[in-house]
Amino acid sequence: MSDKPKTSNKLLARLPRGLVDRAPGDIAATDRMLAAIRETYELYGFEAVETPLIEYTDALGKFLPDQDRPNEGVFSFLDDDEQWLSLRYDLTAPLARYVAENFDTLAKPYRSYRCGWVFRNEKPGPGRFRQFMQFDADTVGTASVAADAEIAMMMADTLEKVGIGRGDYVVKINNRKVLDGVLTAIGLAGEENAGKRLGVLRAIDKLDKFGPEGVRLLLGEGRRDESGDFTKGAGLEAAAIERVIAFTAAKGADTAATIANLAAVVGDTAQGNEGVAELEQIGALVAAAGYDDGRVVIDPAVVRGLEYYTGPVFEAELTFDVPNEKGEVVRFGSVGGGGRYDGLVSRFRGEPVPATGFSIGVSRLFAALKAIKSPLVTDAAGAGPVVVLVMDRDEIGHYQRMVAALRQAGIRAEIYLGTSGMKAQMKYADRRASPCVVIQGSNERAAGEVTIKDLALGAELAGLGKDRDDYLQKQAEAQFSVKEAELVDAVKRVLARRTA
Amino acid sequence: MSDKPKTSNKLLARLPRGLVDRAPGDIAATDRMLAAIRETYELYGFEAVETPLIEYTDALGKFLPDQDRPNEGVFSFLDDDEQWLSLRYDLTAPLARYVAENFDTLAKPYRSYRCGWVFRNEKPGPGRFRQFMQFDADTVGTASVAADAEIAMMMADTLEKVGIGRGDYVVKINNRKVLDGVLTAIGLAGEENAGKRLGVLRAIDKLDKFGPEGVRLLLGEGRRDESGDFTKGAGLEAAAIERVIAFTAAKGADTAATIANLAAVVGDTAQGNEGVAELEQIGALVAAAGYDDGRVVIDPAVVRGLEYYTGPVFEAELTFDVPNEKGEVVRFGSVGGGGRYDGLVSRFRGEPVPATGFSIGVSRLFAALKAIKSPLVTDAAGAGPVVVLVMDRDEIGHYQRMVAALRQAGIRAEIYLGTSGMKAQMKYADRRASPCVVIQGSNERAAGEVTIKDLALGAELAGLGKDRDDYLQKQAEAQFSVKEAELVDAVKRVLARRTA
Repeated sequence: MSDKPKTSNKLLARLPRGLVDRAPGDIAATDRMLAAIRETYELYGFEAVETPLIEYTDALGKFLPDQDRPNEGVFSFLDDDEQWLSLRYDLTAPLARYVAENFDTLAKPYRSYRCGWVFRNEKPGPGRFRQFMQFDADTVGTASVAADAEIAMMMADTLEKVGIGRGDYVVKINNRKVLDGVLTAIGLAGEENAGKRLGVLRAIDKLDKFGPEGVRLLLGEGRRDESGDFTKGAGLEAAAIERVIAFTAAKGADTAATIANLAAVVGDTAQGNEGVAELEQIGALVAAAGYDDGRVVIDPAVVRGLEYYTGPVFEAELTFDVPNEKGEVVRFGSVGGGGRYDGLVSRFRGEPVPATGFSIGVSRLFAALKAIKSPLVTDAAGAGPVVVLVMDRDEIGHYQRMVAALRQAGIRAEIYLGTSGMKAQMKYADRRASPCVVIQGSNERAAGEVTIKDLALGAELAGLGKDRDDYLQKQAEAQFSVKEAELVDAVKRVLARRTA
Repeated sequence: MSDKPKTSNKLLARLPRGLVDRAPGDIAATDRMLAAIRETYELYGFEAVETPLIEYTDALGKFLPDQDRPNEGVFSFLDDDEQWLSLRYDLTAPLARYVAENFDTLAKPYRSYRCGWVFRNEKPGPGRFRQFMQFDADTVGTASVAADAEIAMMMADTLEKVGIGRGDYVVKINNRKVLDGVLTAIGLAGEENAGKRLGVLRAIDKLDKFGPEGVRLLLGEGRRDESGDFTKGAGLEAAAIERVIAFTAAKGADTAATIANLAAVVGDTAQGNEGVAELEQIGALVAAAGYDDGRVVIDPAVVRGLEYYTGPVFEAELTFDVPNEKGEVVRFGSVGGGGRYDGLVSRFRGEPVPATGFSIGVSRLFAALKAIKSPLVTDAAGAGPVVVLVMDRDEIGHYQRMVAALRQAGIRAEIYLGTSGMKAQMKYADRRASPCVVIQGSNERAAGEVTIKDLALGAELAGLGKDRDDYLQKQAEAQFSVKEAELVDAVKRVLARRTA
């Protein structure tokens, strides 16, 4: 019950690494961006669902990329009944649990979207956080590639809706079945080669980062980075490496050329040909809807690092340049991706439940919108509240009534609650970005008046020469007195100057 | 890479106890409620801030009510660097950390609001969850009771804004200093009596649940509940018990009477008199703003279970009756509370940092709005998307173009993505609450037409006698064909029927 702090035991106020606070401007701007995404998803008939942040560890599964040890990368804790719980690491695994649990009551095919925090217990880096937000859309219960094509096109619409210009982005589509065909063709079929296949997958996923030469090393013996750290490779033979590289480089001048290249590289493998046929169908659907103008393209360089994808995979890339942390100019890159995961819901159901989905990295997309100064995120935060100064602390009830009158008129307003004098109160109002302050000292109170000081106009005036013709006029507008009964109208006039 | 489920290893799709999924209707209704709360807070000059869900365990402290063992009730895990992390259990402790960390850059007094999930690792019960949402408002950096009065009145405005009628709620205010005065008067001052004081606090906090007789037992030897479980009491003497009970029953016919009763019960204790004087000031401010009409009242029966409060404490109670789980009619009760916590930020700063705040239990308030059928939460979810049926799977690209045309006109629309026939597709559209479906079979395609079926009108028609005069007219409106070029306009006409 003592509020005396013990300085000797003073705690350090700090956040664990990889976690951040969000300021008001970013919160409001992110909310506007999320609303735009939501609107697009709903236009496509997707409906909201929300799952808790904690799930049974076994229900989430172990599907994180670049994590070979069980549960690595996941925050987990033991429940009272000795069952393991985890914080979700994405929004796909919880959706699979949700659909399996509510399978009979959902209208299928089930189009759903979700936005929320996910957690990764990994080493944070620049732009990498341990808590971050994803915004997912998924269609569950259909094996039709029309669902994949729809999601890819919806992503294009979503990027445009939040302010990314046409030509500044591309939604790339590939197919895991094609990769599986390539892997079969180079002798990596079968359960015994599962580890090697995953190694190939992760090597290809580094194409953006290390280029074909780096990927060649990762497919072969391994790669040593600049710091001297060595990453062991997948150990493929030279011919196999070249076939994998040929697969990633199969993109042609148009969809037909890409399809022909892919058909050559998969040879006569059944799964490979199935994958190529699916890509051909997707290409036709994309063309039919007119999205084949560079918005949605078949690009075999995209594989996605997650193991659970079983068919088409997507990646949304922003193609404009931005400076990176080192000041180099780089392509902005990926803001989201996804793919078909026909096995995830089946884990619970014991029957095939095809599904496909896409996940937007909210912070990445937000950073992109800031980089291009999208109006959605750069719109002025708006003025702060009107501040009623406290000139006489015995009259606080009276000042409070003025504030209440302003609020009742829908005007954001507050009374100064500190103990400082007028100068500090004016400084406070400045820091709050107040459009104006309301002042009533004893003289004004005796006269039944209030003084209103327009802070924007006041600042403008300070920069003007006093010899200007309009100085006196502006001065009269910047600070003026009115009868107390006219307070609300007078403040409204000052606010109107701002919007004018 | 295999998507064949192993039925023998089939996972159970289930959520850990005390965690729930949220359906689209509840998500949208909650969002509307949160927006109304936010609007009120912003009108009062409060600004948003957001902190992560994970904090250092020591930064959060151990301030949960009814938890005597360290860290009981909190989800915690060890970080890689052997430091303990916890999921936040409220939004106050993280705010204290945030303010301490950003003390020099915040304009003070700092008015802030936050909405977010919090976690309690405790036994869930009816209406008690392990993950739930709070919506807090706090003013940090002022010891003025004007800040406490303002928050209490803002809570009254907030409840009305979300649809609770005047007279259906009361915001109660008490003061911990008054209770401290009573405790000093009965000889419980000093560090050595800290445990006993906490026992008294928690006994009083049960007043609502057990009544004065139950609290008398908890203040004395202890109380045995219906199941036979015994809760040990605070062990006070009879005279001390009666003085505490007199304190809780000090509410008079008006504020002046309550203040007089409290003055008598605290006797000549310094802290007690300081507390009574603060309540008197708050009463005056509330009266000056006109909230003394039953919206905000001084009520000494409110103490709040949290140990960290140091001054005024609040509780927002809904006074209307609802049936409980047992079918008994009970008062709805508390939807939020708070108080002054001058010691929380000081833990980090080594200097006094006064602060006061209020926390709304979002799920509790949402349940209340549902109980009174507030328009905010009962507004019809709105129609679902228009469904374009797939009559010929080879023409899916063509159907997709129709859907794209509808979406471009701002109409929520989707193509049926399953493999079922027409009857199942119609059933799907019904379950999606579609306003209408769009049908184009081979005959219609040959004629360049589409058929539109109004599902609401169709359902209405099914209930009408065919001998009615308007039957044929309605039948013609419920299903009609138009040229494909007129699809969007025709669907707009059907949608307009709904809103008419």
